[in-house]
Amino acid sequence: MLKKLFPILLLSVFNFSYSQTKNIFGFNEKDAATQLSLESSFDKNLSAENVGATVKLLSAKPHHIGSPGSKENAEYILSLYKKWGWDAQIETFYVLFPTPKTRVLEMVSPTSYKAILKEPALKEDPTSGQSGQLPTYNAYSADGDVTADLVFVNYGLPDDYKILDQMGISVKGKIVIAKYGHSWRGTKPKVAQEHGAIGCIIYSDPMDDGYFAGDVYPKGPFKNEYGVQRGSIMDMVINPGDPLTPGIGATKDAKRIEKSEALNILKIPVLPISYHDAKPLLEALDGPNVPANWQGGLPFAYHIGPGKTKVHLKLAFNWDIVPCYDVIAKIKGAKYPDEWVIRGNHQDAWVNGASDPISGQAAMLEEAKSITELMKTGWKPDRTLVYCSWDGEEPGLLGSTEWVETHQKELQEKAVIYINTDGNERGFIYAEGSHALEPLMDGIVKNVIDPQTNVSIFERRKAKDALSENSTDGREKIINENNFKLDAMGSGSDYSSFIQHAGIPSLNLGFGGEGSGGEYHSIYDSFYDFSTFKDPGFHYGVALSKTAGRAVLRMSQADILPFDFTHLYSTINGYNEELQSLIKNERESTNIKNKMIKLNYFAVGEDPKKNLISPTAKSEVPYLDFSPLQNALEDLKNSADHLKVIFQDKINKNGGNSIAFNQLLYQAEQQLLTETGLPRRPWYKHSIYAPGFYTGYGVKTLPGIREAIEQRKWQEAQDQIYADAKAITKLANYLKAAALK
Amino acid sequence: MLKKLFPILLLSVFNFSYSQTKNIFGFNEKDAATQLSLESSFDKNLSAENVGATVKLLSAKPHHIGSPGSKENAEYILSLYKKWGWDAQIETFYVLFPTPKTRVLEMVSPTSYKAILKEPALKEDPTSGQSGQLPTYNAYSADGDVTADLVFVNYGLPDDYKILDQMGISVKGKIVIAKYGHSWRGTKPKVAQEHGAIGCIIYSDPMDDGYFAGDVYPKGPFKNEYGVQRGSIMDMVINPGDPLTPGIGATKDAKRIEKSEALNILKIPVLPISYHDAKPLLEALDGPNVPANWQGGLPFAYHIGPGKTKVHLKLAFNWDIVPCYDVIAKIKGAKYPDEWVIRGNHQDAWVNGASDPISGQAAMLEEAKSITELMKTGWKPDRTLVYCSWDGEEPGLLGSTEWVETHQKELQEKAVIYINTDGNERGFIYAEGSHALEPLMDGIVKNVIDPQTNVSIFERRKAKDALSENSTDGREKIINENNFKLDAMGSGSDYSSFIQHAGIPSLNLGFGGEGSGGEYHSIYDSFYDFSTFKDPGFHYGVALSKTAGRAVLRMSQADILPFDFTHLYSTINGYNEELQSLIKNERESTNIKNKMIKLNYFAVGEDPKKNLISPTAKSEVPYLDFSPLQNALEDLKNSADHLKVIFQDKINKNGGNSIAFNQLLYQAEQQLLTETGLPRRPWYKHSIYAPGFYTGYGVKTLPGIREAIEQRKWQEAQDQIYADAKAITKLANYLKAAALK
Repeated sequence: MLKKLFPILLLSVFNFSYSQTKNIFGFNEKDAATQLSLESSFDKNLSAENVGATVKLLSAKPHHIGSPGSKENAEYILSLYKKWGWDAQIETFYVLFPTPKTRVLEMVSPTSYKAILKEPALKEDPTSGQSGQLPTYNAYSADGDVTADLVFVNYGLPDDYKILDQMGISVKGKIVIAKYGHSWRGTKPKVAQEHGAIGCIIYSDPMDDGYFAGDVYPKGPFKNEYGVQRGSIMDMVINPGDPLTPGIGATKDAKRIEKSEALNILKIPVLPISYHDAKPLLEALDGPNVPANWQGGLPFAYHIGPGKTKVHLKLAFNWDIVPCYDVIAKIKGAKYPDEWVIRGNHQDAWVNGASDPISGQAAMLEEAKSITELMKTGWKPDRTLVYCSWDGEEPGLLGSTEWVETHQKELQEKAVIYINTDGNERGFIYAEGSHALEPLMDGIVKNVIDPQTNVSIFERRKAKDALSENSTDGREKIINENNFKLDAMGSGSDYSSFIQHAGIPSLNLGFGGEGSGGEYHSIYDSFYDFSTFKDPGFHYGVALSKTAGRAVLRMSQADILPFDFTHLYSTINGYNEELQSLIKNERESTNIKNKMIKLNYFAVGEDPKKNLISPTAKSEVPYLDFSPLQNALEDLKNSADHLKVIFQDKINKNGGNSIAFNQLLYQAEQQLLTETGLPRRPWYKHSIYAPGFYTGYGVKTLPGIREAIEQRKWQEAQDQIYADAKAITKLANYLKAAALK
Repeated sequence: MLKKLFPILLLSVFNFSYSQTKNIFGFNEKDAATQLSLESSFDKNLSAENVGATVKLLSAKPHHIGSPGSKENAEYILSLYKKWGWDAQIETFYVLFPTPKTRVLEMVSPTSYKAILKEPALKEDPTSGQSGQLPTYNAYSADGDVTADLVFVNYGLPDDYKILDQMGISVKGKIVIAKYGHSWRGTKPKVAQEHGAIGCIIYSDPMDDGYFAGDVYPKGPFKNEYGVQRGSIMDMVINPGDPLTPGIGATKDAKRIEKSEALNILKIPVLPISYHDAKPLLEALDGPNVPANWQGGLPFAYHIGPGKTKVHLKLAFNWDIVPCYDVIAKIKGAKYPDEWVIRGNHQDAWVNGASDPISGQAAMLEEAKSITELMKTGWKPDRTLVYCSWDGEEPGLLGSTEWVETHQKELQEKAVIYINTDGNERGFIYAEGSHALEPLMDGIVKNVIDPQTNVSIFERRKAKDALSENSTDGREKIINENNFKLDAMGSGSDYSSFIQHAGIPSLNLGFGGEGSGGEYHSIYDSFYDFSTFKDPGFHYGVALSKTAGRAVLRMSQADILPFDFTHLYSTINGYNEELQSLIKNERESTNIKNKMIKLNYFAVGEDPKKNLISPTAKSEVPYLDFSPLQNALEDLKNSADHLKVIFQDKINKNGGNSIAFNQLLYQAEQQLLTETGLPRRPWYKHSIYAPGFYTGYGVKTLPGIREAIEQRKWQEAQDQIYADAKAITKLANYLKAAALK
């Protein structure tokens, strides 16, 4: 059967999956019909061509924070909203944003090589040679001028240093070179600094980001030898936002701390380079060969060093305070003006950023344009819509964080939801967010049709998940799972301050998986690249408008806001079970490893020529008291089950007396915040979701408990069980009270 | 703790593990003490220096079958045995052995490249530039002169062709290029031929055999860009040995078939090349990008073709009948002259073969020398020892197969065991063989001390297995397993005809895992390479002499031959359980895949731009009747348990009346042969062990049933269950009768 026949055949097989749903969660039957008709009109106003034109326009120039391009884009976006009749303004913050003054990387021994640190313009890509493009660097690197032996540290993860320890290799006083990947980039210099390194080079290895994945740019989408991933290394897992105004808005007159006091700025110089520049350095390294799974894709055997290879790294930055332009556009809700549905996508890029972030920004603007068209027919949203184009996301979620910190009180009163998007490409729906919102997203993903296959984006994602899974049991489970699942939120885009700092229910949405490439944070993230490789025809831009637009419109129009805390309960309970397995596995693996140490297996089983240092025994893993958490979860289950009955009852009664009830629903997530936040990073207040201290973007759920176990801090783990149990009990009691309203 | 301290510390921790065992399986208490003292004297005669000198001498010149070097080596070995007073002779066979006349590989489009097909001499390696070295080729390739489009087929396995089918790519009329690895080399052209290819190139990819593993030769041991793996592609899974005399000895006047009638010679030309020669061809390929796990280690994105890349492959061979010199040396047994303990290692190499096979040959000669020394003290072996140096192993186990086929009847009467070795290097003991011999090997590996760590080779292997295992459960299991396990025998060395054709109990022994390199079947398998990287100091040569020597001496001197069929039973029963899981998994995965096909998941979940052809549903997997096998195994269990009691009783009674009983024991394995052999390859008669039809060297256990299931031949699988049950029942009844002797 050839691909061309698919759409026709599929219609008959899959028509059940996207038949018009008669019911929408949160709507009574009559209002559901109205809503579906509204969404149908909404869809009709969306134009792929227009999405493409917006991507082209907004990526025509470099537009990083502080650049003329960023200001022009913000003003253009403002002008659009104004033209459409929205109440729009630019809210400006003033934030620390370093740009390079000096960048030197050279090998001084055993041979000399001066890194070129530049991505060349390509004739195929018309924007690739523009002036004003930021050079390749990592924002918030320290200034520094260091010369030292080079050591290759694989991905620079804590586990990689354990292996170096076993080999007797220290990075103290050395410059490390680490591969991009397997952690957020900022984790690499942080861990290097913890281990005493005085400088850090990060490069894109062709095995992870280059020709191993396919043809390189411009023949194919993957990273060519000169491509460099820019990016921030601000230690965002301590707190994102302007480093000089932690916890408060970076308004013009805000009280600022000294740069040296900022806890999220590292102390060592850090530079990202291409594999072209990394090759001579790595090839010159001697010392032992790397362990088997450290080898990368350059055509020689990798060595760890240290040895005769010395490098000189000299970096200096302009540590400027620059304006950060957030465009905030509102339409007042006709029925519930004090309930805000907030929608956001950043507008700043590292360079031209056609994909990151303009593909998402263009889809969001297309939604706003379509809503404007709906309003031309006399329709008005029930709740207030707030569309936000953030500046300064790339250096550290600056625009969104400063805005949330400035308006925190009002947001915690009024914000019903924050819906985020960012870069978008051809492929499969992904969604992360507050788990009480699962039924909302379930209804949406079963209602939006995939542009390539004519099945719902839910069915397509499910088919792909089943194909990616190898085990029969796993496939069976995927096929039989008819509810869409939300992933948990880590970090890496503008939702962080909403959910993790302020407890606003949030979603992060996008499509991906069929537009892979190596353009990320390089000059090649251009309109040419995007329209050729990432979303030709811009159909997934429209699919994103439909998906995020439905989330906006359903949250705006719902009779009763579609929160279902039974989903939150079962998700947290799953995490609880994971943690119990985690500590059990840690206990068992510690025991067996200690036994192997005692039996001298490391001395006897390893190759003596490798001169490895045998590990020492670890302390045994105690049993922790999980009962407070289990009891709290039982309470939450009961409250959530009961509330669900009340909820359905109110829907059946056409939502009578809903303002107070709705407010209780959307403010429920705030009950999960703890006063003191997470250990050693109090900005993060959410007890269920946080970015990992050593993973960066990657989420840790029940983070206080989980990270304490991972870091073998047993007393802290027990304390965090109590803290999380307290937060969950607070929510359970709150929901119990809500059911009485 | 530093490595240097290990030996001292280890003595106290591990002294339990190699304390002198008082009992040896098969010996009464008094004879065990004598035996241990004998082995101690045997050990004292072994010299690492002498092993090194033998390796150097026998690898000083190229000595492939038919070469002057091979004849000289055979004559030298003969002279040694004669000097030592053994009854030694050369037994000569006449076998088909092709050598290259013409070898041309060139790319003719889109650009031209002529492959150099030559490994350069290196100044570091004194034998690397010798004349008389066989050029790089695959023996038993067909003659051919073909020009066609090139297609990259990954490792050329059946599963790789399934992926090509899905991509709509056929190799019919094309020349394929496959990576070495993941199957025996002969499988690649065989499968290519089955799919209609007209030529096959095999190359060593640097990801599998080159700089990905470490520094390349001569800086390190791994394959440099010019290294080529020679090797036979005779279809040995049909039958090994001289292709013109299948099933009979290739004596001077044997009746020969025509080459065109030989079932184990392929019809297409096949050539092995280096990654230097493969690079321009692969770089020129276009067509689709390879699937992610097909990418190799050359520094560009691999493509599959076909496209504009055409190659010309021209090969012609001298199809000569050459003499094959087996050196056979005997010492008549003083007590049981008609019971033969056979020991063998080949002497021919592809080129100089310091590692393959001389490292094993030198260890074997060292054993024979030590036994000679023992005899000088007046000691004589109880059973007849037969030490064999095989010629022509490399092209297709020629020397051993022809000898077994010639003397099959006598061997089946007299051969107590065949003990094989081949190349040997620094590392860990491995042993494969007849599972009734497990207790014999268990006693030996706990008694031989590892030269690097001073613990028994059993403890060292166990420590390494525990370190290599990642799961806690797996580690626990390894630590708690105190019995040494034999692996099952596939193919790839001279034991094949003994065990799989004639049913002679066999062992294959060696050390490995710390001498990895890329020298295999290249001119760089030299004394320089071996003494620098594979076994510096030759201590593992001595360890092999001790290990194989103990096997020889214990089998020679045992009161009752140490066969324990309860181990055979539990091993076969494990295979039986594996097969039941295999068919269950196949049933479940077929069901779920058919369900996914019906749900259209392949059409919907795959990237439409890849234009993949969705698979079609497979027939459902029936339930098979395993009860005959289960009942037969129950019988075997009972017989083996009972026989074990009788065995112990005889030992206690000092082995009285043992000749008839011993004969029954060593001939028991022959009961597992079936008259008709395996489907489509009747030469393989053993019902429990065979090399896999599509894996080559890799073993398939209960091969008739297993391969029928894997190939979805359900009726054949059922028939093979009956056949194997019959063979096992035959053995069970035979053992029952033996217990009465």
